[in-house]
Amino acid sequence: MGEGHVRTAACIAVGSELLEEDRLDTNSLTVTRVLLEHGVRVVEKRVVGDDEEVVSGAIRELMARVDLVVVTGGLGPTADDVTREAVARALGVELVHDPAVEAWIRARYAEFGREMPEVCTSMAMVVPGARVLRNARGSAPGILVERDGAILAVFPGVPREMERMLREDLVPLLEERGGGRRRLRRTLLVSGLVESEVEDRIRHLYGRYGRENVTILAAQGLVRLVLHAEGTPEEAAARLDEMERAFREGLGDHVAGVDVDGLAEVVLGLLRGRGQGLATAESCTGGLLGAMLTEVPGSSDVFRGGVVSYSNESKETLLGVSHATLMEHGAVSEPVARAMAEGARSVLGCDWGIGITGIAGPGGGTPEKPVGLVHWAVAGPEGTVHRSRIFPGSRSFIRRWVANAALDLLRRMASGAEVP
Amino acid sequence: MGEGHVRTAACIAVGSELLEEDRLDTNSLTVTRVLLEHGVRVVEKRVVGDDEEVVSGAIRELMARVDLVVVTGGLGPTADDVTREAVARALGVELVHDPAVEAWIRARYAEFGREMPEVCTSMAMVVPGARVLRNARGSAPGILVERDGAILAVFPGVPREMERMLREDLVPLLEERGGGRRRLRRTLLVSGLVESEVEDRIRHLYGRYGRENVTILAAQGLVRLVLHAEGTPEEAAARLDEMERAFREGLGDHVAGVDVDGLAEVVLGLLRGRGQGLATAESCTGGLLGAMLTEVPGSSDVFRGGVVSYSNESKETLLGVSHATLMEHGAVSEPVARAMAEGARSVLGCDWGIGITGIAGPGGGTPEKPVGLVHWAVAGPEGTVHRSRIFPGSRSFIRRWVANAALDLLRRMASGAEVP
Repeated sequence: MGEGHVRTAACIAVGSELLEEDRLDTNSLTVTRVLLEHGVRVVEKRVVGDDEEVVSGAIRELMARVDLVVVTGGLGPTADDVTREAVARALGVELVHDPAVEAWIRARYAEFGREMPEVCTSMAMVVPGARVLRNARGSAPGILVERDGAILAVFPGVPREMERMLREDLVPLLEERGGGRRRLRRTLLVSGLVESEVEDRIRHLYGRYGRENVTILAAQGLVRLVLHAEGTPEEAAARLDEMERAFREGLGDHVAGVDVDGLAEVVLGLLRGRGQGLATAESCTGGLLGAMLTEVPGSSDVFRGGVVSYSNESKETLLGVSHATLMEHGAVSEPVARAMAEGARSVLGCDWGIGITGIAGPGGGTPEKPVGLVHWAVAGPEGTVHRSRIFPGSRSFIRRWVANAALDLLRRMASGAEVP
Repeated sequence: MGEGHVRTAACIAVGSELLEEDRLDTNSLTVTRVLLEHGVRVVEKRVVGDDEEVVSGAIRELMARVDLVVVTGGLGPTADDVTREAVARALGVELVHDPAVEAWIRARYAEFGREMPEVCTSMAMVVPGARVLRNARGSAPGILVERDGAILAVFPGVPREMERMLREDLVPLLEERGGGRRRLRRTLLVSGLVESEVEDRIRHLYGRYGRENVTILAAQGLVRLVLHAEGTPEEAAARLDEMERAFREGLGDHVAGVDVDGLAEVVLGLLRGRGQGLATAESCTGGLLGAMLTEVPGSSDVFRGGVVSYSNESKETLLGVSHATLMEHGAVSEPVARAMAEGARSVLGCDWGIGITGIAGPGGGTPEKPVGLVHWAVAGPEGTVHRSRIFPGSRSFIRRWVANAALDLLRRMASGAEVP
């Protein structure tokens, strides 16, 4: 293979099923991420059906425009798998049978105690001059070939087979071509600010670090600030350290974590470090907060349990919220949120308790207590803090947002950060 | 516009941000679904950056191959919005300024008490001969034009603006061209069978109804069987009735519901009809089952609440599971699952109680009780039924699967279906 620097790429996902109304090509996200790490930018993505002419046309056209074309899918043995033929046609060559590849495929089947179906001989047809990529997680071989300065990489559509070949076969080639340059990323999890507020605080840094190296993603009341830096791995890491410091200056203790999945992971880590336990009392979130906490492996050493008090009765029986408080203030109120948090903490014998009560909608709102109104409270060793807000958006959105708001309140209380 | 029948379509999503590692073009799913309802099949999808030459090339190439090209995005007023220019270039025409469109855009801004920024005059540049689609939910106009028998529809990228134009401006045209023909869908929610078992039971019907009219989707221990039928709306509905009967014959009471979001909706509807209440006791699912139930609006008239008993202590204190049982059998065992279900039922005073306890992993497994082992039980008016299984897969997958398995057990018990 040649020596050209690889800067741009295109993805082609092959498979009529990927054009159905319920399916998306997600392989391209993995490809995009891995290529970006090596400084290669995906500039076009296509999803095409099992049509040899369309696939070969797409390959030809894109190889003329970008440095690397990654094709996924259509490498199986059945009649609707047309990718091998399409590659040959795009390159103007004829497929040839390779006995060594066939022997390898037979051996793969034998490993699992099965005989290779005869139809699988089609997978032993190879593109002359191309590298045959052995599939460590399946039987369909991949293809790696270069023509007129453009690389063509063809992987099976099964995500784990695809990802393995991508990392084991393509990445080493990109590393060689890139002269050891990498594009690394680091993600700051930001809480308590909306997207535009984050942007206002960091915009002045765009010029210094490049607009294309900063991505802001908002979801469920949280913002993820993704920073990128290029260079040797050491240079890129040092640059990311510098960027992190600079962005943290503008964001202060709104930065809840770095390279974490979510606030649950942050809070669990914080309490684990102090040997403290956590309990929850959920009304409108109905168990969602517990589910978010327990989605994190190993959460059981911090999270002791919780109560989903979806009725007034259960707030009384399980959490000890007084009947009088419920009657006087209603289930969605500050006193009830406080009593739920304190009840969870005391019933489960923990250092920390979270209480959430609200109206997630779409029904159940009144002029006084509209849909979206949520009260939450965190009870801790030094007392209970309550907050409330009317959240906009759908039921699902409101529930996720308030679960994150409650986790963030706990994070701030437990870490001594300002509680806004 | 002409009279050609519209059968095939392609989607082009314009926007460099859609090529990032965290973003997918989901507008194409809405387009695919709506077009399918009118018998139009999407045969190719592309995502391209804000590059006028690439966008115009894609439009030209696809208009030569399909009956309808739908472009989304790139219609805003800023310099990186190139779609209008690309359309003009693809059609070989020059954009012209339309004072009426500009007046309309100014009026849109005025409605919100704002003055139109001067940069927005670019949105009043129109394609000669094309219909300008007024945007009821934003300010960027869309474009609808026909050339050499192919339709080109161009919508803003904002999903709600896009969907409105799709339904209000494009669908009437497709209805006119389709002579009132529609392609309707109906989804059977199937529980207790894996994908291949469903396929074995229904494969003999492919010939009668067409392989392309049956889609099987598997997720989280459930299978969705999507049936399609074409014709006038009445014909298609009658055909779907017939198909539903035929497929139900093979699937029996594994069919849990029709056109429902999930099992939670089915179970809530079933218990609501009988005026019965439900409580949950969750260990390894940590609140996920409660979250699934309460994601359904109006669930509070059936779901009274639950306990997340993530520690042994909480199983004793909150659910009354006996210390001896926990010591003798361990937390992940049949007696504990039964005691949890019965405890939830009695503590919350409900007709039905669900108990789930297991090892979701990745840690915590032993040779005797491996990762994936889950016990679940449903306590009802006529007694308690227990099941257990070692589920394969990730923590997240195991948790979702067992939550659905428990809901299905309750569905079967409450509806008098066989409990396998």
